[in-house]
Amino acid sequence: MPVKQDHRSVDPAAIAMLQIADQNEIDNVWERLEKQQPQCGYGQLGTCCRICTQGPCRIDPLGEGPTQGVCGATADTMVARNLARMAAVGSSAHSDHGRKVALLLKAVATGENTDYEIVNEEKLQGVAAKLGIAADGLTTLELADKVADAALDCFGSQTEAPIQFAASYMPERLQKQLGNAEATLKSATGARIGLMPRGIDRESVDILHRTHFGCDADPLSLVAQTVRCSLGDGWGGSLIATELQDVLFGAPQIRTIKANLGVLDKEMVNIIVHGHEPVLSEKVVELARSAKMNEAAKKVGAAGINVAGLCCTGNEILMRQGVGVAGNLLHSELAIMTGAVEALVVDVQCIFPSLADLSSCYHTQFITTSEQVNIPGATHIQFEEHDANQIAEQIVQKAIDAYPNRNAAKVYIPEQTAEAVVGFTVEQILGALGGSPAPLVEVIANGTIKGVVGIVGCNNVKVKQDLFHQELTRELIKRDILVIGTGCWAIAAAKDGLMNLDAQELAGSGLKAVCQSLGIPPVLHMGSCVDCSRMLVLAGAIADHLGVDISALPLAGSAPEWTTEKAVAIGSYFVGSGLPVHLWPAPPILGSPAVTGILTEGSKDLLGGYFFVEEDPAATAEQMLAIINEKRAGLGI
Amino acid sequence: MPVKQDHRSVDPAAIAMLQIADQNEIDNVWERLEKQQPQCGYGQLGTCCRICTQGPCRIDPLGEGPTQGVCGATADTMVARNLARMAAVGSSAHSDHGRKVALLLKAVATGENTDYEIVNEEKLQGVAAKLGIAADGLTTLELADKVADAALDCFGSQTEAPIQFAASYMPERLQKQLGNAEATLKSATGARIGLMPRGIDRESVDILHRTHFGCDADPLSLVAQTVRCSLGDGWGGSLIATELQDVLFGAPQIRTIKANLGVLDKEMVNIIVHGHEPVLSEKVVELARSAKMNEAAKKVGAAGINVAGLCCTGNEILMRQGVGVAGNLLHSELAIMTGAVEALVVDVQCIFPSLADLSSCYHTQFITTSEQVNIPGATHIQFEEHDANQIAEQIVQKAIDAYPNRNAAKVYIPEQTAEAVVGFTVEQILGALGGSPAPLVEVIANGTIKGVVGIVGCNNVKVKQDLFHQELTRELIKRDILVIGTGCWAIAAAKDGLMNLDAQELAGSGLKAVCQSLGIPPVLHMGSCVDCSRMLVLAGAIADHLGVDISALPLAGSAPEWTTEKAVAIGSYFVGSGLPVHLWPAPPILGSPAVTGILTEGSKDLLGGYFFVEEDPAATAEQMLAIINEKRAGLGI
Repeated sequence: MPVKQDHRSVDPAAIAMLQIADQNEIDNVWERLEKQQPQCGYGQLGTCCRICTQGPCRIDPLGEGPTQGVCGATADTMVARNLARMAAVGSSAHSDHGRKVALLLKAVATGENTDYEIVNEEKLQGVAAKLGIAADGLTTLELADKVADAALDCFGSQTEAPIQFAASYMPERLQKQLGNAEATLKSATGARIGLMPRGIDRESVDILHRTHFGCDADPLSLVAQTVRCSLGDGWGGSLIATELQDVLFGAPQIRTIKANLGVLDKEMVNIIVHGHEPVLSEKVVELARSAKMNEAAKKVGAAGINVAGLCCTGNEILMRQGVGVAGNLLHSELAIMTGAVEALVVDVQCIFPSLADLSSCYHTQFITTSEQVNIPGATHIQFEEHDANQIAEQIVQKAIDAYPNRNAAKVYIPEQTAEAVVGFTVEQILGALGGSPAPLVEVIANGTIKGVVGIVGCNNVKVKQDLFHQELTRELIKRDILVIGTGCWAIAAAKDGLMNLDAQELAGSGLKAVCQSLGIPPVLHMGSCVDCSRMLVLAGAIADHLGVDISALPLAGSAPEWTTEKAVAIGSYFVGSGLPVHLWPAPPILGSPAVTGILTEGSKDLLGGYFFVEEDPAATAEQMLAIINEKRAGLGI
Repeated sequence: MPVKQDHRSVDPAAIAMLQIADQNEIDNVWERLEKQQPQCGYGQLGTCCRICTQGPCRIDPLGEGPTQGVCGATADTMVARNLARMAAVGSSAHSDHGRKVALLLKAVATGENTDYEIVNEEKLQGVAAKLGIAADGLTTLELADKVADAALDCFGSQTEAPIQFAASYMPERLQKQLGNAEATLKSATGARIGLMPRGIDRESVDILHRTHFGCDADPLSLVAQTVRCSLGDGWGGSLIATELQDVLFGAPQIRTIKANLGVLDKEMVNIIVHGHEPVLSEKVVELARSAKMNEAAKKVGAAGINVAGLCCTGNEILMRQGVGVAGNLLHSELAIMTGAVEALVVDVQCIFPSLADLSSCYHTQFITTSEQVNIPGATHIQFEEHDANQIAEQIVQKAIDAYPNRNAAKVYIPEQTAEAVVGFTVEQILGALGGSPAPLVEVIANGTIKGVVGIVGCNNVKVKQDLFHQELTRELIKRDILVIGTGCWAIAAAKDGLMNLDAQELAGSGLKAVCQSLGIPPVLHMGSCVDCSRMLVLAGAIADHLGVDISALPLAGSAPEWTTEKAVAIGSYFVGSGLPVHLWPAPPILGSPAVTGILTEGSKDLLGGYFFVEEDPAATAEQMLAIINEKRAGLGI
């Protein structure tokens, strides 16, 4: 099938599948976007309020109509409340993921769960040491129990004290900077406005309470709580997810994987795991690799079982198991359209409910597994961690059973795949550098590399798929800026070959030389979106090494093609940690001059970090270079 | 000033003040409602989704346009997610109130806070006994410490077990019924869908996670989690607030108070406390009654200091301190317009942000005190519990200082007040009955009283103020149905004289005779909206006494004129506890046939409780009588 240009995606595999969708009039997300036009302008600007039944109220930011809602809320109040709720949801989603891992570690530690084990004792000891938990004389399981308790306490803590993970992992200078910001807010407003995160769940609940009808109306304190709650995610819930997953499933290793729909195999039973949590998918991979299940697959005429990932579940298992990734968010419908997917097994987050209807047009078994994700039309197989092996086998068997129903006439698998070197955790990066950030700092200080940009991102159907991810990344490395990142951005970069060693050729001469000497690509895959915590920890390590604030470093963040409320939390904890963060599309805040001002300007003085919005990838790269040069000048390098 | 009819309120005091507002063109909530017309129909029907930036999406329930959002979410999914988030916010608001009380009890118990004390040892012992905490050999403070810990653990618990307050206070039959419902859901969906509440904060966070982009899409599991989270509020957070407030501030006593704007005193420094939490207002009352502050007031020419309540802070202090209540939600702006309010002191929830602008047109000091409530234009005096006496004095002094600035030409205080007998806690009701629900059960069984209806409610500017509250209440007592309730409904009933002993005359002959023999009004004030927990406990006590499910009892609930997300949580925990619940206005669910069906029909089989919507007060009373008669028939009485 000839590959042509398409306004919907830059990915040739996607374009090929979209041709099939067009020819066969298969419903898809791009079509549904078109049908939803025109979308509500109030919602896009953040000036729609549905918080009480005296509404809904809306305010035209251009000044037509009323300037207040029924209760008296201004556009500033509405926008700030809506934004805060987005951060609460995003923080809760990622942190709930962390809680599940902490609960699993606890169950393994107490012997309640024997289907999982502590794979990475070294990491466990590292986490314990970081938390100040003495390991002496403790067995591995005893130590795991203490670490699990410390993590669980971060979710449930009811005191005013910062949670232990944040207090232990955050650079001291950042904690001090946040304390100073609290003092500044206190003297400006008279109010006790906190920034250091208390209990993770409590900070989300605090947002729900303060955005209830007739509570907080001040954009400043609402934004402050948005940041605090998000910091509780970044330095709490998400960090706990990352650290404890490494303990339970092993530390990701630098390895080469394949990315794009071509990882599906025409001759095999294809199982796609999609969502975010590795707890289930690790087991699916394990069972799919077992002799027993492969025998079963052969009995129905398949050559074996092939597991592929999608979205961040894909990121988790590519890092730890070397499993190929079929694509990012906007590939999820396209993957089913290949007609070669026996089972699409999902856990949580970013799962189009449309996948149920779509799967029913094929032989694909669409299997939901989480109590928190029930989708009408799906087959629900409740995943119970304490019975993980048996349930994973059941799921794999279901895929095998579906194989004979595959309709060969409907099968088309695009050939595209790219090779990607992945698995750059903080430990792996520091390991590659000889155990310390010193060599990295040195090449930054001498200007060989200008700085580092961390990118996370979804796909967003309003942006041509992967275009921003790829172009921004290319423009940055061309400017000798090392790019690191996670999530659906990482898959976009992998599909584009930017994580291949060949991509060194696309880098500026300085970055190219460094990458060649280290044998790494100029674009580093740091994990799933929950692993943005790895970028925080890396930034903290560099700042500590230099004895400066994170906000002084030549670093920036970006969330291009972002879609979810998780991205609001991620962006906010980056900003709260002192980083400038680029966003595109624009967040729903532009209806409020006050909120826009606080996030793009006011926070600069208060926190060091701030947001900026830019729709052109090259211009974004140019702006980031300017920021990086400004920071370099500040450091006198 | 002659009192006339007005489409905005039935309350003569309100009508008088609205005349002043009209004459002087003073901005108010009714005017702002008019300016917001027309309001968004999608929002009102629940079919607007702003959960991700691929939206906003909307679905026309009449079938014009697309039937799915960009992600594939149907109207059912959108409505269910929006509803679940409302319950999460409502639960969080009330429960956060409970947390604050539990933290204060902890601080008092440990001696960290010496500005408060344990006022009600008997209640403390009762709560401890209920929780199974042995009091033997413990000092009061030691026992308080254990109770506080048990309460705080309910907020932070990370296990799958039901929280201790719910497990201890819920009738065993209800726990069994919820367990059966869980089993039914499991067999219907294959999913592990829980109903007994785990950690209070966690249940709200669970809703945020499952309503994140690409998670739960099933109206059934979304509604189930809505109920679970709300039960965690009703039998958890709110119950903790009620019980521990009784411990710290004393058990409300049956007493007579005055209600309506006429409680303001032309000759005195008037301080209005408004919001929901008694922690601050108890201290304001204490200081305002002190000789020192009254001397200070006299020095500036006032006759003394008069504290009045508004909204649920008003309910808290009228029950415990006999302080008059100036009005309910829609009186908050009107109170300032009297020109006789020196300070409006607010804590949390249901505080129109418009009060800042409005106060600035008068000499009124508008004082915010909570870190969770900052309102541009207000004076913020951060209330710190550990320094409560000093800060309360500062606030009272601020009011005194404002008195000389009062503009006599602007002062108009409507004369209306009504006397109301209030303070009917479970303990007081059972005490009046001789210690057991037996006498109440007997008069219900023999048909003297047909049943009991519990009402809670806000004001809602879309409903003529107090009209539904008053007419429904009158229609019910006329039909020999005892009415109990809380919140802004209770203030409406008080203002209307329905809590006066004279109101016995408005009751049917059976109810009238019972009220006369007990010396109580036919309409009982059970507290603030957080005290809806008292109604749950009372229903449980009656059910236990009879050995039947709550859902078998001739009881019903109602939230007329409801406005807030708290009301969604209250309604849902009533329904989850087995009660039929009336609502008006209609909640934003009518865009989904599935959600509407589950809440009005499906839940009947599953939980015993269900919602119904009716806009006419007399028709509502008639429907409630039919429900009560059906339940009576079921019980064979």
